[in-house]
Amino acid sequence: MTQATATRFAAPPIDKLPEDIRARLLAVQEKSGFIPNVFLKFAYRPNEFRAFFAYHDALMEKDSGLSKAEREMIVVATSSFNQCEYCVIAHGAILRIRAKNPLIADQIAVNYLKADITPRQRAMLDFAMRVCREAHLISEDDFTGLAGHKFSDDDIWDIAAIASLFALSNRMAHFTGMRANPEFYLMGRVPK
Amino acid sequence: MTQATATRFAAPPIDKLPEDIRARLLAVQEKSGFIPNVFLKFAYRPNEFRAFFAYHDALMEKDSGLSKAEREMIVVATSSFNQCEYCVIAHGAILRIRAKNPLIADQIAVNYLKADITPRQRAMLDFAMRVCREAHLISEDDFTGLAGHKFSDDDIWDIAAIASLFALSNRMAHFTGMRANPEFYLMGRVPK
Amino acid sequence: MTQATATRFAAPPIDKLPEDIRARLLAVQEKSGFIPNVFLKFAYRPNEFRAFFAYHDALMEKDSGLSKAEREMIVVATSSFNQCEYCVIAHGAILRIRAKNPLIADQIAVNYLKADITPRQRAMLDFAMRVCREAHLISEDDFTGLAGHKFSDDDIWDIAAIASLFALSNRMAHFTGMRANPEFYLMGRVPK
Amino acid sequence: MTQATATRFAAPPIDKLPEDIRARLLAVQEKSGFIPNVFLKFAYRPNEFRAFFAYHDALMEKDSGLSKAEREMIVVATSSFNQCEYCVIAHGAILRIRAKNPLIADQIAVNYLKADITPRQRAMLDFAMRVCREAHLISEDDFTGLAGHKFSDDDIWDIAAIASLFALSNRMAHFTGMRANPEFYLMGRVPK
Amino acid sequence: MTQATATRFAAPPIDKLPEDIRARLLAVQEKSGFIPNVFLKFAYRPNEFRAFFAYHDALMEKDSGLSKAEREMIVVATSSFNQCEYCVIAHGAILRIRAKNPLIADQIAVNYLKADITPRQRAMLDFAMRVCREAHLISEDDFTGLAGHKFSDDDIWDIAAIASLFALSNRMAHFTGMRANPEFYLMGRVPK
Amino acid sequence: MTQATATRFAAPPIDKLPEDIRARLLAVQEKSGFIPNVFLKFAYRPNEFRAFFAYHDALMEKDSGLSKAEREMIVVATSSFNQCEYCVIAHGAILRIRAKNPLIADQIAVNYLKADITPRQRAMLDFAMRVCREAHLISEDDFTGLAGHKFSDDDIWDIAAIASLFALSNRMAHFTGMRANPEFYLMGRVPK
Repeated sequence: MTQATATRFAAPPIDKLPEDIRARLLAVQEKSGFIPNVFLKFAYRPNEFRAFFAYHDALMEKDSGLSKAEREMIVVATSSFNQCEYCVIAHGAILRIRAKNPLIADQIAVNYLKADITPRQRAMLDFAMRVCREAHLISEDDFTGLAGHKFSDDDIWDIAAIASLFALSNRMAHFTGMRANPEFYLMGRVPK
Repeated sequence: MTQATATRFAAPPIDKLPEDIRARLLAVQEKSGFIPNVFLKFAYRPNEFRAFFAYHDALMEKDSGLSKAEREMIVVATSSFNQCEYCVIAHGAILRIRAKNPLIADQIAVNYLKADITPRQRAMLDFAMRVCREAHLISEDDFTGLAGHKFSDDDIWDIAAIASLFALSNRMAHFTGMRANPEFYLMGRVPK
Repeated sequence: MTQATATRFAAPPIDKLPEDIRARLLAVQEKSGFIPNVFLKFAYRPNEFRAFFAYHDALMEKDSGLSKAEREMIVVATSSFNQCEYCVIAHGAILRIRAKNPLIADQIAVNYLKADITPRQRAMLDFAMRVCREAHLISEDDFTGLAGHKFSDDDIWDIAAIASLFALSNRMAHFTGMRANPEFYLMGRVPK
Repeated sequence: MTQATATRFAAPPIDKLPEDIRARLLAVQEKSGFIPNVFLKFAYRPNEFRAFFAYHDALMEKDSGLSKAEREMIVVATSSFNQCEYCVIAHGAILRIRAKNPLIADQIAVNYLKADITPRQRAMLDFAMRVCREAHLISEDDFTGLAGHKFSDDDIWDIAAIASLFALSNRMAHFTGMRANPEFYLMGRVPK
Repeated sequence: MTQATATRFAAPPIDKLPEDIRARLLAVQEKSGFIPNVFLKFAYRPNEFRAFFAYHDALMEKDSGLSKAEREMIVVATSSFNQCEYCVIAHGAILRIRAKNPLIADQIAVNYLKADITPRQRAMLDFAMRVCREAHLISEDDFTGLAGHKFSDDDIWDIAAIASLFALSNRMAHFTGMRANPEFYLMGRVPK
Repeated sequence: MTQATATRFAAPPIDKLPEDIRARLLAVQEKSGFIPNVFLKFAYRPNEFRAFFAYHDALMEKDSGLSKAEREMIVVATSSFNQCEYCVIAHGAILRIRAKNPLIADQIAVNYLKADITPRQRAMLDFAMRVCREAHLISEDDFTGLAGHKFSDDDIWDIAAIASLFALSNRMAHFTGMRANPEFYLMGRVPK
């Protein structure tokens, strides 16, 4: 029943999209072999597309005290709490690839408390979940706890900002009926 | 105790900020007489500043089937659920001004179900709260219900996208210890 | 829609009310310039009116180790949790006046954890919220914690009893469709 | 551990209590053979004692479209939700006696949805639980639903007011460490 | 309304039941004077009957570091959280008998935190409730805490396994409309 | 940290296990190529092992109006709600194989409301989740709703019983620190 929502907000054909957006779609298709649905959904609103991916790239592509795999862990853990099919499955795939670990994404998706991660990663995810579920309770104690795991203030900002961005992203994915492309399910599961 | 978080992420002095960001700060100061703290907090990270305000302007400043006052209602209702001091007080002020109604913001902040709003606005806020709290349950029934109140699919996107953007914004406000400037509290309460 | 509930339980005309109740209504009108709706709502049931205001006065008007402003903080924090429009707005006004602070009521209403209050007041509100939301968990540990902030057992009783009385009051306000008089919104916001 | 709270607020010896309170204690002892602990706990604060029992009597002793047994059902159902030992056990005893039914109190305490009650009593308890847990959601729909079961507006007030009074009472019982007297456990279970 | 569910799954007449099941029913009738409804409900499905009671006996009848009364405490506390009429009332009766204490079952059913139990029993019930409500959070800290109360690892298994078995049992009782036999209500309340 | 719990309850070496249990372990190893950890964990307690697998087989291996794939859907949906790593991953593998569908398990694990299933399967999972999370609310309405999807009373029993059995199983998996064998992660994902 809910799948019908997926057809409501159809992006225009690629050749009708603004040049910068079309270029990004073609680039990702070139790189991945397919266009992840998040690009097609946001393309319905070019200005929001540009803002969303600018925000995304500012956090996920830059240098950080968090590895790229760790940043994907934050996405998977918080998106699983929000029951977001697209983000758990698509970012689960990216996490497997970046961590070179075929098991980690499913473990974090089901229950990050039982996943095979380091204590530092556990502290990172605990804080990400706090931002995700109960940001109004954040206090200096949270910062103190994280400092004990050698996170800088900038690393902590990154954790909070990624959890915040996917609070937006998960909600838009639910609203637009975004579905994970079938290609994601198997990515990173089989050694190359 | 938690106030200490407010001092952790201090923006550089205005004259050290990138030109585009400094220009925006000066423009808002010119217009409002002060710089709302949300600008100073996000200025700590210029790329995120640009993405956040681009997203904000794409939703809050454009033409829409929702009036600007109605869009602020969404911000106040969802931010109150998230217990976000900055957003409830700052956007409450903007709502009073845009609605030319000194009572509406407090009513919506406490319990939008009892506020003096139209049935259409009530349906708008019901859906915004669904995106805010339980987006994973959204189904075609939600769209059908809203259509009965003469919302177009684009209006519905606006409701969902504003609720989603402030899901991000509320979390960043909590994390950064953002505080509402004292100027906001009285704005729109006294007839000019 | 819900406003209709507000017309269901109309008090008789003031001149038909029992003498003691009429006298109290006239006294409060004399003092405040208007009759707060809580008096009119409870006047529908004279015996409950007498009991409610006797309870109220026994806690809110007597001498206590809690200042009158602090007692109003308890009302605002717990009523906000219960989403009670009347109590947050009316007692917010009284709090601003008693604390001589135009900002404090809105801060406590949105998120008392982020309000500009003393650690002792924070401990007071933490305990009030425990009574409000999860009284079944109260244990000796709560008393020990409060004693560290120099609250006597009688002060602690006052905190608990005020939170308990407004557990009643908030529910009756919701049920009767009690609305805050417009006069409350601006009280205590502008220096005299 | 929590039992210690029970000794914190000891009433003065009966002969030191104000005359009206002492008289009530002696009357209840005369009638019941023991003094229920609620009287001793509230006697610590004479003014609150008077207000509480005035409120109680105004609702529980007067004539109403609800039978006395039905009013006790409201107390047991809402007090069970609040996990209040005193009120569930003491009012469970009164309910058994007033309903002349040794099974009904335990059924309502565990899960009123499965209790052997009439559809009208079920509607009464559904509304009482709404007041107890989520009064902020009450709307005209609740009144309409109850009217279908032949409740007058005054009956509905009684339901709401009893649920509200025990919202107060349950919290004070938890706070004061009030314990049900052993006499209550067996009352109404064995045919006389 | 819900009572109708009770008639949906009627066991065959006793003389049509498989021999082993009929024998167990007759044995319990011989011992107790009546057949508790749990036996009749599960008899609808002989294989599940056998598995359920095998599991039950493996935990409730064997030797353990937990007394039989303590094991019944776990059943009553967790079944009360799950609002299971049959299990709270039937096992409450067994608890009164095994503990030789007419008050303990009602205390634990309403709020085990306020019951007259030893600190060791309190720790046992805290862990049982953790298994009941939030097993996904169990960590080494839980084991460490229990070890401080002299529970062996096997005792801890028993606590967890009983809470788990009644997670099943409570759900099946709700589903099948299982009702406590009237005989249970008074058992263990009156000294023999 | 929590992984340590996994080492607490180690089964004896296979050759020390009771004959019937050893035979079952060897049979499953023969069939699957490895011994799923659920067998090793329960082997710590032979009687509970026997009862658990007897219950399991009585529901999962018999003929039913629910296909074997549908029964696995119930396990995955409810175990995901309970955040049970073992059951989501192991039964997700079995579901993929039985449904011959490499995508379905991940979809149901993240959010069954958005999975590609039939309306009848959606109704089946809605009821399974009701048993899982709020069995105390089950009423005749649930049965009526399911009958509209052509489920017999026996099919409904199967849904409820499977959800109930995994309420037990998920809790024991959390408690024992049961981990999904690595073999499960890839099963059923790649066409043979």
